[in-house]
Amino acid sequence: MAKEKKLVEAITSMEEDFARWYTDVVKKAELIDYSSVKGCMVIKPTGYAIWENIQKELDRRFKETGVENVYMPMFIPESLLEKEKDHVEGFAPEVAWVTHGGLTPLQERMCVRPTSETLFCDFYANEIQSYRDLPKLYNQWCSVVRWEKETRPFLRSREFLWQEGHTAHATAKEAQERTELMLNIYADFCEEVLAMPVIRGRKTEKEKFAGAEATYTIEALMHDGKALQSGTSHNFGDGFAKAFEIQYTDKENKQQYVHQTSWGMTTRLIGAIIMVHGDESGLVLPPRVAPTQVLIVPIMQKKEGVLEKAEEIRNQLISNFRVKVDDSDKSPGWKFSEQEMRGIPVRIELGPKDIEQNQCVLVRRDTREKRIVSLDEVEDAIKEVLDAMQIEMLERAKAHREAHTYEAKTYDEFKDIVANKPGFVKAMWCEDEACENKIKEDTTATSRCMPFNQETISDTCVCCGKPAKTMVYWGKAY
Amino acid sequence: MAKEKKLVEAITSMEEDFARWYTDVVKKAELIDYSSVKGCMVIKPTGYAIWENIQKELDRRFKETGVENVYMPMFIPESLLEKEKDHVEGFAPEVAWVTHGGLTPLQERMCVRPTSETLFCDFYANEIQSYRDLPKLYNQWCSVVRWEKETRPFLRSREFLWQEGHTAHATAKEAQERTELMLNIYADFCEEVLAMPVIRGRKTEKEKFAGAEATYTIEALMHDGKALQSGTSHNFGDGFAKAFEIQYTDKENKQQYVHQTSWGMTTRLIGAIIMVHGDESGLVLPPRVAPTQVLIVPIMQKKEGVLEKAEEIRNQLISNFRVKVDDSDKSPGWKFSEQEMRGIPVRIELGPKDIEQNQCVLVRRDTREKRIVSLDEVEDAIKEVLDAMQIEMLERAKAHREAHTYEAKTYDEFKDIVANKPGFVKAMWCEDEACENKIKEDTTATSRCMPFNQETISDTCVCCGKPAKTMVYWGKAY
Repeated sequence: MAKEKKLVEAITSMEEDFARWYTDVVKKAELIDYSSVKGCMVIKPTGYAIWENIQKELDRRFKETGVENVYMPMFIPESLLEKEKDHVEGFAPEVAWVTHGGLTPLQERMCVRPTSETLFCDFYANEIQSYRDLPKLYNQWCSVVRWEKETRPFLRSREFLWQEGHTAHATAKEAQERTELMLNIYADFCEEVLAMPVIRGRKTEKEKFAGAEATYTIEALMHDGKALQSGTSHNFGDGFAKAFEIQYTDKENKQQYVHQTSWGMTTRLIGAIIMVHGDESGLVLPPRVAPTQVLIVPIMQKKEGVLEKAEEIRNQLISNFRVKVDDSDKSPGWKFSEQEMRGIPVRIELGPKDIEQNQCVLVRRDTREKRIVSLDEVEDAIKEVLDAMQIEMLERAKAHREAHTYEAKTYDEFKDIVANKPGFVKAMWCEDEACENKIKEDTTATSRCMPFNQETISDTCVCCGKPAKTMVYWGKAY
Repeated sequence: MAKEKKLVEAITSMEEDFARWYTDVVKKAELIDYSSVKGCMVIKPTGYAIWENIQKELDRRFKETGVENVYMPMFIPESLLEKEKDHVEGFAPEVAWVTHGGLTPLQERMCVRPTSETLFCDFYANEIQSYRDLPKLYNQWCSVVRWEKETRPFLRSREFLWQEGHTAHATAKEAQERTELMLNIYADFCEEVLAMPVIRGRKTEKEKFAGAEATYTIEALMHDGKALQSGTSHNFGDGFAKAFEIQYTDKENKQQYVHQTSWGMTTRLIGAIIMVHGDESGLVLPPRVAPTQVLIVPIMQKKEGVLEKAEEIRNQLISNFRVKVDDSDKSPGWKFSEQEMRGIPVRIELGPKDIEQNQCVLVRRDTREKRIVSLDEVEDAIKEVLDAMQIEMLERAKAHREAHTYEAKTYDEFKDIVANKPGFVKAMWCEDEACENKIKEDTTATSRCMPFNQETISDTCVCCGKPAKTMVYWGKAY
């Protein structure tokens, strides 16, 4: 038994030290490994398979709205990055610079893309001539580089994977509609696929994207009560269009600037899955995103017929589920611990006695609930368990968020909550950036978003006491 | 009519100037565009959709053999690149160097990966401890950078997309088997999906990959008689394992070096598709890789019922084919030219009279063959046409290759063929690199491969006249 316990004992308790628990899970569930390249990660097969499932689901949803995939160069010449003033100020301090090609110094240095607005704009300036060329609804899947000082697996690394959508429209109204459409696709995806509830809203001026007119965000609450920005959608208005001269001839033969948007989601979503659903035994994966949904663990697998039966069940399930048999020479207890650590939603235990009685044991990862199921009904039973688990994981995450969402009417209340009760704080704001800065300085909490669903908590700004304009979600964030 | 012809007239004749024809097709079929980043390309929606189809097919074939996808950092510290002597000599002259992160100079400069052997080896050195950890069968889809001086769309650019597989095995035998397995997967993929026949063989010592023990290749013949290396698979033996100290404990508890392979295919395959199948009207796409397989062109689309019927047919076909309706306000003739330029395999022409007679016209892109088909049988007819087209495109490409493959017994014959008859030359070789060098110098032809299917053309080396050891395919190459 000592050996069996090792895998589980090796992770820190999440109540004791959430940050270490997180790092332990990331390593022990074999999602990621550190590399010799400081601040950059190796995404291992299980981590990457989660990303592939995320990609597949998002890509399908994008394409259903007319989005097409393209690929832009990974380098941005310095002069191109500098074309939009706010944008370059936001990104120049954190880019990696290429100065030599082979043995020759470059005439102009180039950065590795931290994001590709400037490349898309440069491309659109040639590509868009007439109203017939609009809208352009392009997206790319790629990696980007931001030279962060402090890094954490999935959450903040110098290179990460993402998708970045970049659209161009004839009118401001269309651009605004697309900005909101993509935010809603992100939010629905998080809830339906990742079982992760999110608050939809708008970022304050201080927190918006460099170069955007408005940034919209979805904010999720992690198990430790910290917020995670999980996807953003930006409306650029015609700011980039003017900087890059992206004009089209309208139906009246007049020159008009296009209106643009961009929107992105990243591998940090995998960090969110871990921190929303994980428990003391490790990862818990929502069935819809789990690379393996069902693991069959044979008991006394050397007995005649056990492995054969396990294979038979696997072959029966394979067309409807992502299923594997663990036939390694480890003990069943060890395999159970591994399956739990890796967050595989359903385990099937199958031994000689089960086979005799034409049954198996189903164990659900999140609740540990066990069911004895006839082998004739195993397929239906698994479907039921996976469906229930997907729904209940979302409900549980919602309940956790509700239980950790507070309201503050006064600044004392606000400070007390931020100091003692991890979670979201709903509080009113006068829309003056000075208050936002003071709150951050006093408490380290930041404005997460101005939610679309506005409520009135009080009449005055929680910080300065002047008349309030907006309800804001505040919180400490990753 | 003048307007309709413009699109077609704009491309150069392939017989007149094949290189310009190629560039014209790439642009007019909207596969690629130039960018402000010298030597880097923008892959446009149609080009990228072809790549997505290639990815989907290859990825499935890889995974069926147990391969798992991962993601490694895009940067390689200089000291890591230098660990394997031949490898660094091969790549250092053509890498892009990152020297600054944000405003700070890096302590050690890093290159953007030209290929990732060194990163995988560094990872495997930690990851592999015991024989239980083997084999490792990892692959990644990413972009790589090689600082080429001369670039051409898809064929040679400073950044390109590819997959790179990297495996580690317990024995030399297993590594050799994997090397050959992947080469055969590549070859089958080219023939079955891209309708492109390839010669399977081994590269000479001179032409092998930097750091490999042996490189295997598939070589295809383009329409102009030049060869294109279309995929390579390398056996590294234990050379990298020794340089990176990748050892495992075997069943007898002894330390052993692993044996490794790597293998890759790139977006240059899209260039191959263009140059193998294209014609004077533009691109011709094999049905299995075409983003759109069927284009419905309504005739007199403003007449009542025409567009509705086109949509109805589209909806009927959509579950089995990739199908679109062109309902833009261009003329039918213009739409025909565009469909031909873009290489869409089947066009459906549908006008009011057709609808009256419950029929439509199917036009096959490669042969221009027209068939009048009852609307009740349109689905079967399309399946037939696409299947036939896929098979006949391969046959035609094979016939073209046979017609442009020559044999040379003497050096005079050899030089005459290379100078006057574009294609492959089969000729014997003594295996002395001096002859290979002389041939290249005298004729610009290079050794393409030593095919698995060996034949005896003569007894003596075509260059020096000494006893021959091997039959080699020679040719001018992209």
